[in-house]
Amino acid sequence: MDKKYSLGIDFGSLSGRSLLVEVETGLEVACVVSNYKHGFIEEKLPATGEVLPPDWTLQDPQDYLDVLAETIPEVLRQAKVSASDVIGIGVDFTACTVLPIRSDGTPLCFLPAYRSNKHAYVKKWKHHAAQDEANMLNKIADDRGEKFLLRYGGKISSEWLFPKLWQILNEAPEIYGAMDHFIEAGDWIVMQLTGCRVKSSCAAGYKAIWSKQEGYPSNEFFKALDPRFEHVVEEKLSYDVKPIGGKAGELTEEAAVLTGLLPGTAVAVGNVDAHVAVPAVGIQKPGQMLMIMGTSTCNILLSTNEINVPGICGVVEDGVLPGFVGYESGQSCVGDLFDWFVHHCVPAEYKQAAESREISIHQYLREKARLQRPGESGLLALDWWNGNRSVLVDVDLTGLLIGMTLATKPEEIYRALIEATAYGNREIIETFEQNEVVIDELYACGGIAAKDDFMMQIYADVTKRPIKISDSVQTVALGSAMFGAVAAGEAKGGYDTIFEAAQTMPHLKDIVYKPNPEASMVYDQLFAEYKILQDYFGRGENDVMKRLKKIKRVSRNHG
Amino acid sequence: MDKKYSLGIDFGSLSGRSLLVEVETGLEVACVVSNYKHGFIEEKLPATGEVLPPDWTLQDPQDYLDVLAETIPEVLRQAKVSASDVIGIGVDFTACTVLPIRSDGTPLCFLPAYRSNKHAYVKKWKHHAAQDEANMLNKIADDRGEKFLLRYGGKISSEWLFPKLWQILNEAPEIYGAMDHFIEAGDWIVMQLTGCRVKSSCAAGYKAIWSKQEGYPSNEFFKALDPRFEHVVEEKLSYDVKPIGGKAGELTEEAAVLTGLLPGTAVAVGNVDAHVAVPAVGIQKPGQMLMIMGTSTCNILLSTNEINVPGICGVVEDGVLPGFVGYESGQSCVGDLFDWFVHHCVPAEYKQAAESREISIHQYLREKARLQRPGESGLLALDWWNGNRSVLVDVDLTGLLIGMTLATKPEEIYRALIEATAYGNREIIETFEQNEVVIDELYACGGIAAKDDFMMQIYADVTKRPIKISDSVQTVALGSAMFGAVAAGEAKGGYDTIFEAAQTMPHLKDIVYKPNPEASMVYDQLFAEYKILQDYFGRGENDVMKRLKKIKRVSRNHG
Repeated sequence: MDKKYSLGIDFGSLSGRSLLVEVETGLEVACVVSNYKHGFIEEKLPATGEVLPPDWTLQDPQDYLDVLAETIPEVLRQAKVSASDVIGIGVDFTACTVLPIRSDGTPLCFLPAYRSNKHAYVKKWKHHAAQDEANMLNKIADDRGEKFLLRYGGKISSEWLFPKLWQILNEAPEIYGAMDHFIEAGDWIVMQLTGCRVKSSCAAGYKAIWSKQEGYPSNEFFKALDPRFEHVVEEKLSYDVKPIGGKAGELTEEAAVLTGLLPGTAVAVGNVDAHVAVPAVGIQKPGQMLMIMGTSTCNILLSTNEINVPGICGVVEDGVLPGFVGYESGQSCVGDLFDWFVHHCVPAEYKQAAESREISIHQYLREKARLQRPGESGLLALDWWNGNRSVLVDVDLTGLLIGMTLATKPEEIYRALIEATAYGNREIIETFEQNEVVIDELYACGGIAAKDDFMMQIYADVTKRPIKISDSVQTVALGSAMFGAVAAGEAKGGYDTIFEAAQTMPHLKDIVYKPNPEASMVYDQLFAEYKILQDYFGRGENDVMKRLKKIKRVSRNHG
Repeated sequence: MDKKYSLGIDFGSLSGRSLLVEVETGLEVACVVSNYKHGFIEEKLPATGEVLPPDWTLQDPQDYLDVLAETIPEVLRQAKVSASDVIGIGVDFTACTVLPIRSDGTPLCFLPAYRSNKHAYVKKWKHHAAQDEANMLNKIADDRGEKFLLRYGGKISSEWLFPKLWQILNEAPEIYGAMDHFIEAGDWIVMQLTGCRVKSSCAAGYKAIWSKQEGYPSNEFFKALDPRFEHVVEEKLSYDVKPIGGKAGELTEEAAVLTGLLPGTAVAVGNVDAHVAVPAVGIQKPGQMLMIMGTSTCNILLSTNEINVPGICGVVEDGVLPGFVGYESGQSCVGDLFDWFVHHCVPAEYKQAAESREISIHQYLREKARLQRPGESGLLALDWWNGNRSVLVDVDLTGLLIGMTLATKPEEIYRALIEATAYGNREIIETFEQNEVVIDELYACGGIAAKDDFMMQIYADVTKRPIKISDSVQTVALGSAMFGAVAAGEAKGGYDTIFEAAQTMPHLKDIVYKPNPEASMVYDQLFAEYKILQDYFGRGENDVMKRLKKIKRVSRNHG
């Protein structure tokens, strides 16, 4: 029998990619990336030149279709694989990326009547202009004692589906009226491929306040928000939620023409880009937490029963792997923090020295930071340059650095920032454990995990847990390919469950970062100090960070 | 009558200078600077090559004699002034700069028998190797309830005379035995000029635990330190303390040959470099605080009665101007903090932009920082990179920066550091006022005051007081020249009191920095936050800074 392949299509913030994987071995045969032509639409609406308000981030869904058309035929060509050997397709997308469509799947922004209306476009996760709606929603939910808040650490984010949809109702009721559905872009791609409108349990659970047991919030709740919003679920979300790990449908004739694949190819239920990585590192059971580390870090963890852990972004049954409860938590500023530092705080000599050796400034700083022993700098930081997602759930917190002397060097600050993100991670782990959700082992994937052994060792020393690293270049896309192989099923050369796929397809690096007990002993002391400062500045004892932000706002408005 | 002149000789840390001033008008006619040939002796003793222990800083007193020989004849030559028109000489020196001498004034290190003994040399103020002695002295003084501690904010510094002298007794008893006197370098210069051994009330009061009412600490106290130390005052300090503002003596034949001045020229009692600047800006009464601003800031303030203000470095009757009590307080890290920042935290683009415009990086940053409104950055700092001198008197405190986001820019941090030093200054002012020592007006001199209008405006806005600036290029040396004119007296063309000299000789810049009420309103809010953080981190509620220092020490020792 010929080798069989599965295709993982991963839609990120600014690009999409197709990864072709050998189903039996998990070998990554070829990968093709394509950037979105319109990128983020944040300043002006291209169709009209209209200036967009602050905090708006749109995209044009045509860019996603172009990814399908450009990367899939090309990845087949590069891999020299015949379409007949591709048995399944999996899709993942950044969550909270939502658009209004007609019942046939046409985005409203494709229609001439709505092309010039900014609310007809995709609202990206980082579209933060529905904050007023989110605040009101949280207040009303809290007043009404809505239980669902507990599943989301007590707060619904402005990034999520309902605040964005409510914003449309408030600001563009004509668009609200004209849409038949409001859909996650991942589900929309699956619809483009299969013709089937299927809502992924992952996106629904983590970003649309849905749960397997309770469904969506009640009509009474939505009515309390706005009488026009009472029947929002029936009117705008009237499609089935299907658990991830299942098959959404099969490739249509039309999609086959677009992609060069065969009609009838199995397509999996859509997934969220972070969550889909879990099986791709081989995680199949509780106790193993995955850290997807990049500009920010997303942590995913399985459990057998649903416990409401305070300060966690979300807990969803069937949200990550079928049959398990999946927890999502995260840190909103990791790689971004180190990038901020190298752009704003590194002296010219360092930059020149790095350039003359043709290494990156990050590498240069890490070489120097590596020579320090834990605790040697006397520095400590709170890693809240972009607020705190878990476990404080507070976007208004800001960064702190303490312990500087006239002898403090840039590489010491750099190391303190890395350590601070590790303390933030340990705080997440300890919060889980205090709520009887055990974490024995860590897995990591993403750019930082792949490249940065210095940082990973610090994470092992701080968290006092071994860390295993994905050996995939595109762990997320690999996860989607695995779900594609499961959608195909064993009879077609795939797998019947994601657990079977997870036995053979993932690959880990040989190295496992093991905690060094001597370093851990020092980090225990430093983490104790971090906790004291976290509680003091993050839990209301001294709200100076919020007051400084308020002074800042007033000062800017007076300018 | 010919114009009369007075000479101010100012000995700094690394150079000395002679300033010739017209007595009637205060006009600065000429100034000649000479660097010390040996600079700081910190690594090896030149005579033997012996490696010096950590925290040692010596000087060779020959360098001071060279300043006299090189700068005085040259300043007369440049000014085209005859020695016969120079009526008086004033001398000031960095305090805590002490040396062992024979009764004829010969430094022990000039004698072949002691030339190779490091304890025979000048110990500079920044010689910090007598910390053990200082700690022990403070502990015993505290145990015994010695009242003198109250005059010094509760703590004697390792920089001061007695710890250094005790260190000699402990480590080099042969030097202790061989010295007839242990003397401040300023008093030693006066002795070189006049042959008279006169201890200045200023140096004695601020740095040798002497007071006009109480004299030195008791023999019992010194005995409690070490039985051999019981009679230290009679044995090693047996010379009169004279109030500043008086005449120490007249120029000897020998000194006349050395300097080119006439024998018999009046020489004032020696002074300390910061304190002597007070009359040089025209301050003659309580309520006006002088800030001498450079790498660190020294604050001097007059009062009519002695109140023990907590956290103040020293309060001395006749210490600054005769008939007044003088308070000294200070901030240990001002210009040094901004220098640290530009050396370690400013990106290459900024450096290049400054270079291409041929301005200093400080100037470049200030141009950008000037465009910000108070409070606009959302940042706040505690200015403790080099500990806190006043009012917390704690060298183990360290720096703190709070409020950073991913949008924080270097110039915002830079401005936050400047503001932090201003808050530290305001805290000193408020501590005085809480203890009923009033401060209405601020005066400033030193490099920062002369050049930095941006920073001076922030100081005015934060302290909510007008600030007047010295117009002298060498305010300190001008002060010494004024005391020289007073030593000469009115009959010789000088003045009978320093108060009369202070009516005519000082000059202020035309500009007075006046507080901007709108800025002050914002700074009131920020200062309130500074106070909360100061008290939390500086008064024992959270000693994290000290604990981090301890972890740092342990970590370094394990390396």
